[in-house]
Amino acid sequence: MRIVVALGGNALGDSPEEQLKGAEKSAKIIADLIEEGHELVITHGNGPQIGMIINAFESGKKIDSGIFEMPFPEAIAMSQGYIGYHLQRKLNMELRKRKIERPVVSLVTEIIVDKNDKAFKNPTKPIGSFYTKSEAEELMNKTGYIFKEDSGRGYRRVVASPSPREVVEIDSIKTLIDSGKIVITAGGGGIPVYREGEDLVGIDCVIDKDFASAILAEQLNADYLVILTEVDTVCLDFNTENEKLLYEIKVDQIDKYIEEGHFAPGSMLPKVKAAGYFASIDGKKSLITSLENAGAGLKGENGTIIIK
Amino acid sequence: MRIVVALGGNALGDSPEEQLKGAEKSAKIIADLIEEGHELVITHGNGPQIGMIINAFESGKKIDSGIFEMPFPEAIAMSQGYIGYHLQRKLNMELRKRKIERPVVSLVTEIIVDKNDKAFKNPTKPIGSFYTKSEAEELMNKTGYIFKEDSGRGYRRVVASPSPREVVEIDSIKTLIDSGKIVITAGGGGIPVYREGEDLVGIDCVIDKDFASAILAEQLNADYLVILTEVDTVCLDFNTENEKLLYEIKVDQIDKYIEEGHFAPGSMLPKVKAAGYFASIDGKKSLITSLENAGAGLKGENGTIIIK
Repeated sequence: MRIVVALGGNALGDSPEEQLKGAEKSAKIIADLIEEGHELVITHGNGPQIGMIINAFESGKKIDSGIFEMPFPEAIAMSQGYIGYHLQRKLNMELRKRKIERPVVSLVTEIIVDKNDKAFKNPTKPIGSFYTKSEAEELMNKTGYIFKEDSGRGYRRVVASPSPREVVEIDSIKTLIDSGKIVITAGGGGIPVYREGEDLVGIDCVIDKDFASAILAEQLNADYLVILTEVDTVCLDFNTENEKLLYEIKVDQIDKYIEEGHFAPGSMLPKVKAAGYFASIDGKKSLITSLENAGAGLKGENGTIIIK
Repeated sequence: MRIVVALGGNALGDSPEEQLKGAEKSAKIIADLIEEGHELVITHGNGPQIGMIINAFESGKKIDSGIFEMPFPEAIAMSQGYIGYHLQRKLNMELRKRKIERPVVSLVTEIIVDKNDKAFKNPTKPIGSFYTKSEAEELMNKTGYIFKEDSGRGYRRVVASPSPREVVEIDSIKTLIDSGKIVITAGGGGIPVYREGEDLVGIDCVIDKDFASAILAEQLNADYLVILTEVDTVCLDFNTENEKLLYEIKVDQIDKYIEEGHFAPGSMLPKVKAAGYFASIDGKKSLITSLENAGAGLKGENGTIIIK
């Protein structure tokens, strides 16, 4: 089967050392799937990493005039290099150990969004450092950025999270897959760009990596979208005494579950929505499960399958 | 002809805005070469960018405990994402304007070096911030890094610049070229790695981007290696009243010119050496010239051709 596997950015850790360990752990599971004969395309989140990159340039700029603030598109591009390198290194290693000759390569990936996406009117995704109210107000006046209070911990910049429309580098991804390569792409949801004449202009926002993965899976005509997260199965009434594991969700049940408030925004909600989007296409399935259960999940032994 | 074109990192400027302008300028010249029917592979330096990235994390760490120092391999990977994104964006734009359907894509690229390369015994390549003597001594004791006095401007960390041996992602590069894609690869000389069992371990150093480009051109069986720099032609007695333009250098003249001290280390010297390495292979040629003269240079109208 052709499978798009979306790895969580949180599972990859904060420091370079942690990330390399996370990449090694992920690589073993992914190599298992490749060994079983599946054709894999890998995407990954970049939550902790993009925060660190944005903060590093923002902080560095305060004490070193040779450092410039990084806009989101450029910072996301950096995170694709940073995370893609670790993933390709460790997956190449794991495949060499198993004598599987399938080169792994990471692509710098842009994804087109609609400049008029309504998400731009209401930025919700918190990124980077915490500020006091007066610092935040000063920065808002100076930069035009939007800051919001974040769970009593202070003020943080928020950016929009528009819907992905199209993966720009899709032809190169297809060429590589068709010749047996393992491709790491759409890292951090892709570099968000919008069309302006013949240019694709970068825009300050972040695309949800699960939605980006669903669009990618659709463009690649993949059979399966696998979203890996911290839990083995999607639940109703998660973390309450009524918690109920869902081994299967039908696409037409999703809206009801969402209305009932079962899935946390910024956490399970986008995963279920992205999985539902892909599974609504004829013949396609999605799976939400933990890294450890990816293989069992594809065999129907664990995890949550989303089907039409 | 199949041509590897090496762009200078300095020409790409310091800030993201400058870099985007530099990428646009380079893209026009590269698009001209593609329009003439050449098969292009693009490499680029990352001198100013890698310094900024290393410094941003180093400085940021001082005021934000959530920021970690970036080792060179990870910082180079970031620079490949950062620079590759701008180059692919602007080259894609230029090709769209000309109705040339040749997708451009940037790859995260590792290059193998020898862990026992003698360059590791004598690190010479200055990177990052300037320190006072006492700061440098403290850091040397704390980190084991090596610092050297740099032209009276203070102390800077120096790292080794070992010889590149092999481009790890060569199969993916070939696959993409063979299907008509324009590939940006080996950015900043590639992420330096050495073999340890089945792993390719990243190592703190920087590979000269011109040598990396020469190895890449050799592995790709390219016809031409084009090294773009700030001058139109290589000179003897550069910047003196005896200055003499060289429109052609034979490979067996290079050592003598080097002994006579015509080429500045860290500037023209590695370019001439890398060009000579590639041109010493039967049937191969190198060209050193300015961005503006790339097209004329390939027609033999300007620049310095290096031949056997």
